[in-house]
Amino acid sequence: MTDTIADSVRLDRGPVDLTAIETDAAPGFAGKKADGQSALADMATELADLQERLWAERTAGSERRVLLVLQGMDTSGKGGVLRHAVGLIDPQGVRITSFKAPTEEEKAHDFLWRIEKGLPSAGYVGVFDRSHYEDVLIARVRGFAEPDEIERRYGAINDFEARLVAEGTTVIKCMLHISADEQKARLQERLDNPEKFYKFNPGDLDERALWPAYREAYEIALERTNTEAAPWHVIPADKKWFRNLAVAQLLLDALRGLDLQWPAADFDVEAEKRRLAEETPVR
Amino acid sequence: MTDTIADSVRLDRGPVDLTAIETDAAPGFAGKKADGQSALADMATELADLQERLWAERTAGSERRVLLVLQGMDTSGKGGVLRHAVGLIDPQGVRITSFKAPTEEEKAHDFLWRIEKGLPSAGYVGVFDRSHYEDVLIARVRGFAEPDEIERRYGAINDFEARLVAEGTTVIKCMLHISADEQKARLQERLDNPEKFYKFNPGDLDERALWPAYREAYEIALERTNTEAAPWHVIPADKKWFRNLAVAQLLLDALRGLDLQWPAADFDVEAEKRRLAEETPVR
Repeated sequence: MTDTIADSVRLDRGPVDLTAIETDAAPGFAGKKADGQSALADMATELADLQERLWAERTAGSERRVLLVLQGMDTSGKGGVLRHAVGLIDPQGVRITSFKAPTEEEKAHDFLWRIEKGLPSAGYVGVFDRSHYEDVLIARVRGFAEPDEIERRYGAINDFEARLVAEGTTVIKCMLHISADEQKARLQERLDNPEKFYKFNPGDLDERALWPAYREAYEIALERTNTEAAPWHVIPADKKWFRNLAVAQLLLDALRGLDLQWPAADFDVEAEKRRLAEETPVR
Repeated sequence: MTDTIADSVRLDRGPVDLTAIETDAAPGFAGKKADGQSALADMATELADLQERLWAERTAGSERRVLLVLQGMDTSGKGGVLRHAVGLIDPQGVRITSFKAPTEEEKAHDFLWRIEKGLPSAGYVGVFDRSHYEDVLIARVRGFAEPDEIERRYGAINDFEARLVAEGTTVIKCMLHISADEQKARLQERLDNPEKFYKFNPGDLDERALWPAYREAYEIALERTNTEAAPWHVIPADKKWFRNLAVAQLLLDALRGLDLQWPAADFDVEAEKRRLAEETPVR
């Protein structure tokens, strides 16, 4: 009995050692790149169907929604996941929020203030490209907050996510896990290919120099926020095709788990059919 | 010399008679349904490339953006265009805003207040699913505003759109044009197929009974706002495949017309390459 992708990327409870989790593996999937790309494409129809059901449910008053949280070091492929996995579903039902360095107004509020504003409403698949986790990652590494404030935030995040889940949000948290060597190759590509210059920022190399500190910050954050309500997934992301496949699979599994049904008519179907059949000719 | 799709769907200046514009045609395209679907799929790569360039330009300070305005009677296929045409491009670079009946807060402001809030920022392809045109369409038909206020709005819309264009927005306005018979068939389908019940609202039949008044309101709005800066396109939309193809073609033409270039590096490429090559090993 082999594990599924979802089983394989689910983070175990307890202390986290990212160096012990492979970055270039394809756990839970037996095929190669071409197989993975086909498997991803094959999900499109079911994803579209389930997403439309989620959307339809909303018209019948359902509060359910999905929130996909994407975290990872620079170049880990958050944008690629948005394009290739999230891009499979109807853009009408998707709300993507990218969190950059906070503005002055955002900094004058609690760290979750801007996060609340980016939450998906009922019926939507929301996607966070970076998230409230930056407030315990870069904030910790760069000392943007005091240690006791960072400490407070782990608990605040768990409470926040538990509330989201209780309100009807399915939370899928993914850390895209690449090796330092893979990051180096991707940064090199951005410097070699003029079509990728726009993705490069000299500050990326300053952040890269702090790799061990970021790894430690991730390990602590993952351990402290790997809850029953909102567990973490660590996705080997050196292979772009596996990264896309794994995230799409988690999204598909989450939607399947909602047992989404087409809502019943909230009007008298036969009466409306008669009205349409007996209308004064329209032209 | 045959006309292109864009030439064929561009609305001529002057009085508009929608009954004289075919709804089930495929003007400017010689093929059948399967050819149209292939032609649409074939646009995906170029659309993705140009959209990424638009996005990249933004990092270099460009103010350019695109706004696609979708209008049409109920069931005319605005959602289908979002799914099948807009869905071809990277969702990161798309901002869709759906305008429903205005809220009390929105009604307490000028009709363009909520529209401003939905505008795409630089680098984005914004899409309006319904728009400020509702304020001269349903508002006129249903008498939600006085005639002199409706009159004022045509000019206000032209001034507003001229400003958007001057600020760097390419505005693409599309009216999805279906026949009354086609609408009847689509409403019937929503009543026959339980998976489509959620799309049906008994009020749709009340609106349908006002078809001639809506047609007149469209004709006036199209004539009054068919400006050089932001011209209208009337897309025959009985054939869903042509509707999707035509809108995607207009989007592609607009992006091509921007002559989008990858921005030059705003950093010293060789210096950054040396920094990366000479870094202290990271692991």
